[in-house]
Amino acid sequence: ERALSERGNSAFCWFLDMRRAAILTISDRGFRGERQDGSGPAVQEILDKAGFFMAHQEVLPDNQHLIEQRLRYLTDELGLDLVVSTGGTGVSPQDVTPDATLAVIDRQVPGMAEAMRTASLLKTPHAMLSRAVAGIRGQTLIINLPGSVKGAQENLEAILPGLHHALEKIQGDPSECGDLSE
Amino acid sequence: ERALSERGNSAFCWFLDMRRAAILTISDRGFRGERQDGSGPAVQEILDKAGFFMAHQEVLPDNQHLIEQRLRYLTDELGLDLVVSTGGTGVSPQDVTPDATLAVIDRQVPGMAEAMRTASLLKTPHAMLSRAVAGIRGQTLIINLPGSVKGAQENLEAILPGLHHALEKIQGDPSECGDLSE
Amino acid sequence: ERALSERGNSAFCWFLDMRRAAILTISDRGFRGERQDGSGPAVQEILDKAGFFMAHQEVLPDNQHLIEQRLRYLTDELGLDLVVSTGGTGVSPQDVTPDATLAVIDRQVPGMAEAMRTASLLKTPHAMLSRAVAGIRGQTLIINLPGSVKGAQENLEAILPGLHHALEKIQGDPSECGDLSE
Repeated sequence: ERALSERGNSAFCWFLDMRRAAILTISDRGFRGERQDGSGPAVQEILDKAGFFMAHQEVLPDNQHLIEQRLRYLTDELGLDLVVSTGGTGVSPQDVTPDATLAVIDRQVPGMAEAMRTASLLKTPHAMLSRAVAGIRGQTLIINLPGSVKGAQENLEAILPGLHHALEKIQGDPSECGDLSE
Repeated sequence: ERALSERGNSAFCWFLDMRRAAILTISDRGFRGERQDGSGPAVQEILDKAGFFMAHQEVLPDNQHLIEQRLRYLTDELGLDLVVSTGGTGVSPQDVTPDATLAVIDRQVPGMAEAMRTASLLKTPHAMLSRAVAGIRGQTLIINLPGSVKGAQENLEAILPGLHHALEKIQGDPSECGDLSE
Repeated sequence: ERALSERGNSAFCWFLDMRRAAILTISDRGFRGERQDGSGPAVQEILDKAGFFMAHQEVLPDNQHLIEQRLRYLTDELGLDLVVSTGGTGVSPQDVTPDATLAVIDRQVPGMAEAMRTASLLKTPHAMLSRAVAGIRGQTLIINLPGSVKGAQENLEAILPGLHHALEKIQGDPSECGDLSE
């Protein structure tokens, strides 16, 4: 075990503070107040237990431009560690969350999207229709979850075991983290 | 259970009519009449049982431009619900079906391609070489299948449980469908 | 069994000669001589047993431009059959191997990347963070492996059953190979 003084600029690799997260609920009808969306609170409960500080919550309509704008604000202005969206991941014409996410991320993390779909496919064949994206913008991880409560929970739980490690790596000192992971 | 009158513009979400499909067999030698391709009839048998009306069948050479042109015609002019191709999905230099498909689709459905490869990989390690794409152009779902009879059958059967739901979503009223899926 | 004279230009489809491979170890600290990287030798041992001739080995820093340049040289100038990289596949800011690979390949082989992640995910949830790419440039297959010894071994072994078949297809006469695969 190494002393604090030895860590140098790898301090980011350690979980010193609560990570800050946002939840964006994407739903035309939720935005218009026509229905109470359950996926947001379900996701918040899981992230609370996982030690995240909920810095921002919002309901947005299925509007690609608005979603992109919000993702840029939450990453570039608020500098959050994690942004989770729920809804708009399917193949309906109005589902644009993955497209908005692809437009703002620097790098995809395809393995997280695959892990979500693989886990979800064990429950329902409809899981293969999720176009959910996981990706990185700057030092923020953005994760799309489906809009149904069960779907959002299942998908988030599928990536939870790798989530804090992902955030350490995205933000941490590269070489030190590299050593620790081997 | 809701009455018909309540469905409003969500009528598309319901399976009122037979969906129309096309099968494109992509094979240089099949196009030149040098071999009888078995994948087309095998796919037709499965789609027949699944309740599709076969609106178009054709053998095309491994020519990216021709395939793109044909995909545009079947989607934009004929307005088919489903276009299934067989062949040209591998890593050989002449395999261009996925590239032609990527060029014409608006959105990928990666989970369908993953589900096909995952199912097929249980049978043969060669399944990992399939570059088959699933995607949406307008309101048409386009699915690439491999050219071998067994491969085409296995791959199509892997996505069959999600196929009609996919078409409902691609064409249907978004919010109503959203409710039903939860 | 067909006689040699019947094979015509499908000779490439046959394993007449040893295939030539290169290993690129991507590691800033390895490049600076600050650590001895174990992934390169581990990969070499597996490729030796699989019948590859090791034509080139090199340690490179995590520099996207340098990696791209090297991949172009090994494929276009040396005409190697297989280029395997280790390291730089994660989500840290310095991990650029997948990005360099995406920049130089003509076609992705997503099923190989998926097969690697799926196999690796059975061992550790961190496998979902690998952004490793498999792709084709000209007649060369390029495969990214993670930088840890175990990760590199596990990932390479996951695609080994399809590796020689992939190279046959990438380089071989298309129609003849097509027949053989059915």
